[in-house]
Amino acid sequence: MKITQETRAHIQRLRTEVSALHAELIRWNLVVWTAGNVSARVPGADLLVVKPSGVDYHDLTPQNMVVTDFDGVVVEGDAAPSSDTFAAGYVYSQLEWVGGVVHTHSTYATAFAARREPIPCVLTMMADEFGGEIPVGPFAVIGDDSIGRGIVDTLRHHRSKAVLMANHGPFTIGRTARAAVKAAAMCEEVARTVAIARQGGTPHELDQVQIDALYHRYQNAYGQNTLAKGRSAP
Amino acid sequence: MKITQETRAHIQRLRTEVSALHAELIRWNLVVWTAGNVSARVPGADLLVVKPSGVDYHDLTPQNMVVTDFDGVVVEGDAAPSSDTFAAGYVYSQLEWVGGVVHTHSTYATAFAARREPIPCVLTMMADEFGGEIPVGPFAVIGDDSIGRGIVDTLRHHRSKAVLMANHGPFTIGRTARAAVKAAAMCEEVARTVAIARQGGTPHELDQVQIDALYHRYQNAYGQNTLAKGRSAP
Amino acid sequence: MKITQETRAHIQRLRTEVSALHAELIRWNLVVWTAGNVSARVPGADLLVVKPSGVDYHDLTPQNMVVTDFDGVVVEGDAAPSSDTFAAGYVYSQLEWVGGVVHTHSTYATAFAARREPIPCVLTMMADEFGGEIPVGPFAVIGDDSIGRGIVDTLRHHRSKAVLMANHGPFTIGRTARAAVKAAAMCEEVARTVAIARQGGTPHELDQVQIDALYHRYQNAYGQNTLAKGRSAP
Amino acid sequence: MKITQETRAHIQRLRTEVSALHAELIRWNLVVWTAGNVSARVPGADLLVVKPSGVDYHDLTPQNMVVTDFDGVVVEGDAAPSSDTFAAGYVYSQLEWVGGVVHTHSTYATAFAARREPIPCVLTMMADEFGGEIPVGPFAVIGDDSIGRGIVDTLRHHRSKAVLMANHGPFTIGRTARAAVKAAAMCEEVARTVAIARQGGTPHELDQVQIDALYHRYQNAYGQNTLAKGRSAP
Repeated sequence: MKITQETRAHIQRLRTEVSALHAELIRWNLVVWTAGNVSARVPGADLLVVKPSGVDYHDLTPQNMVVTDFDGVVVEGDAAPSSDTFAAGYVYSQLEWVGGVVHTHSTYATAFAARREPIPCVLTMMADEFGGEIPVGPFAVIGDDSIGRGIVDTLRHHRSKAVLMANHGPFTIGRTARAAVKAAAMCEEVARTVAIARQGGTPHELDQVQIDALYHRYQNAYGQNTLAKGRSAP
Repeated sequence: MKITQETRAHIQRLRTEVSALHAELIRWNLVVWTAGNVSARVPGADLLVVKPSGVDYHDLTPQNMVVTDFDGVVVEGDAAPSSDTFAAGYVYSQLEWVGGVVHTHSTYATAFAARREPIPCVLTMMADEFGGEIPVGPFAVIGDDSIGRGIVDTLRHHRSKAVLMANHGPFTIGRTARAAVKAAAMCEEVARTVAIARQGGTPHELDQVQIDALYHRYQNAYGQNTLAKGRSAP
Repeated sequence: MKITQETRAHIQRLRTEVSALHAELIRWNLVVWTAGNVSARVPGADLLVVKPSGVDYHDLTPQNMVVTDFDGVVVEGDAAPSSDTFAAGYVYSQLEWVGGVVHTHSTYATAFAARREPIPCVLTMMADEFGGEIPVGPFAVIGDDSIGRGIVDTLRHHRSKAVLMANHGPFTIGRTARAAVKAAAMCEEVARTVAIARQGGTPHELDQVQIDALYHRYQNAYGQNTLAKGRSAP
Repeated sequence: MKITQETRAHIQRLRTEVSALHAELIRWNLVVWTAGNVSARVPGADLLVVKPSGVDYHDLTPQNMVVTDFDGVVVEGDAAPSSDTFAAGYVYSQLEWVGGVVHTHSTYATAFAARREPIPCVLTMMADEFGGEIPVGPFAVIGDDSIGRGIVDTLRHHRSKAVLMANHGPFTIGRTARAAVKAAAMCEEVARTVAIARQGGTPHELDQVQIDALYHRYQNAYGQNTLAKGRSAP
């Protein structure tokens, strides 16, 4: 594969960005040991930048990030890429708008996944961010494209940018890697809040009109760069 | 609007104070990503200082705080203000003694809010700080003054400086922004303690005489500056 | 009161020690905002060194610690002492072997206190440290000696160095202030572990012979200075 | 005992490694106060390197680590070794492939231990890491070889590198001390996730074919050095 000067510049920027975003996984308590990773699509190329497999978060640098194609074949880097690279590559190949994919085993989201139960939309911040429930994806074994297909098939039918893969854990997508990390942090927080709310009784449900109003306002009016950050999926 | 020299000095001080207080939201685990904010009234002016919308807590500085009037119209600053500015402005316009407003989605308080259930007063520290239960406010959609009205209408009838807005999360008020942040931290802590107490059975209730004795002592005798810090509401 | 040269040296050392020990309350998540404190007896004098009331943990220094007599009357210091000083002073006046008293509202211990339920001894580390259950003390209002009496009356009859004051929270005692802080940390940890164990069913009880064997071994053989650290109560 | 030059070099390296690994126990919230320890086998000698007993994690240095034989007799060091040294020594004497032993009282794993209940394998990350359930070992009193025997007798029959000693807490083993620390971190995380999953209902079970597929892939294909890190037990 020929890598253009422009692609090389994107890769350099994304090595720094992807490496740094792993600190957010730690900061928001989404990962233990090395069990989570971030990847980013390289704009204009069928390439992605991803964490090396099994490497401690404290040892990540822009230099040891790995560049692969969408089949997980290493294009740049001495290390093996994250074992979730194949799944991420499938997502990038199918959903053109997606610029980042994140996988964690964050505790409360994974607890819902263990019961194969979607997270119901009973919080305004969940309506804001996810526009409804967070759905469950199929049980899939790592190593072929079944995880990637499960993510894509499930999220095509939902506003949610997070999916709980059965007995496994959450995968999140976003227009950028940073947006996918935000979705991972918010997915865990709503899972935790809903789980704790239920311990004391039954949460009050939001109706679809309320959810729609919250979602559209948030996607269009929140933050500093609404055009850049707004509705992120077709 | 003409800004006097004295008002300008207040704004400078409050930019530093409000910016720094967001670190307390992180320190006490009250927020995830950018989901919480602090504002302060500018003394002697119908103005407030507030966090910019959607900006990372690590990127907050005195300089990027936003100054608005009580309708949320920006008076100073390049960034859009927090989307909760309109609610805070309404509170300042209605309750003259209030100098600070805080909003979070802290987990345990929000879990009570999801069930639209007040937090019962079963702890001495809750009697000290809140003088009784922490009440639930109405369900309100962001964007008009319905959140602000919900906060004011609910807290007028309670000693509590915290209200759990239905399916949304806690808002707290105080004579100063720092006092409102303290109320936010204590609100989450009592929500958490009561929720955990209930998992194992039924907490022992405090009667009104006990609650009153604890509240009056704490409001009048705790800390270093009881005159300044004491009874903070009419 | 005449303060001897030797007493003055003890006070200097204890100002540093008591000030620093508050960092352990934060480190082990035992306190929120300013809701906890450490005090130490001044050897050979009816005096104690204690945290000033309502002061942020980050602002504590050896210099702003307060020295009082056992009735809470300030002997040295410009600040008001912790509102728990009177309770601590009573404990020092009644139990000569006690060199440190700690009070927190740590979440899980306080949850047991809200139900007025002792923590049962179902863990080896609990048998090691507390020699049996952690008992509940009476409901007492702050401000007279009823909290101090409640602590002393309850702990006289138990091996435990921790007592859960009803609807209030844990108080712990130790031969040194550091030992009392350790008891506070371990009290919260066993409360948390037992509460979580119960969520999934009924913990397996330890019998008295097992508890006694664990307690005596730990009190006599653990750590580096068993003579100094060992059996700490008559 | 004659210590060869080569053994001396191993001891120097392991003093640094074992000392540093205790920071991981803190980092992943596996320990409170001094209640956990790491040891490592000295290759080619019947010796181990272990934490001194009752010493604060912040005071650990390569220099104050203790070297003992497999009966816990001190060979190098001024301090008493961890009270779990005897148990660790027994494990090293019986299982030649084991290079590290870790003991904690991490909360959720200890909660399962208090109920004497194994952790069921309902998560892909648990199948990956442990290859099935995490078993319970017998109740054993510290001080003779009964804890060591309980660990060895239980783990001989399981893929799991973690055992929950009844009413006590988890012990983990690994080809290296670092691998044993990883097992301790993952043991707590799966205990926590399974406990939280159960609060909301019944997790979906994995069948043995699924578990086997996940385990074999992970042991053979994850990380950077699969030959060195792969199947770690006979």
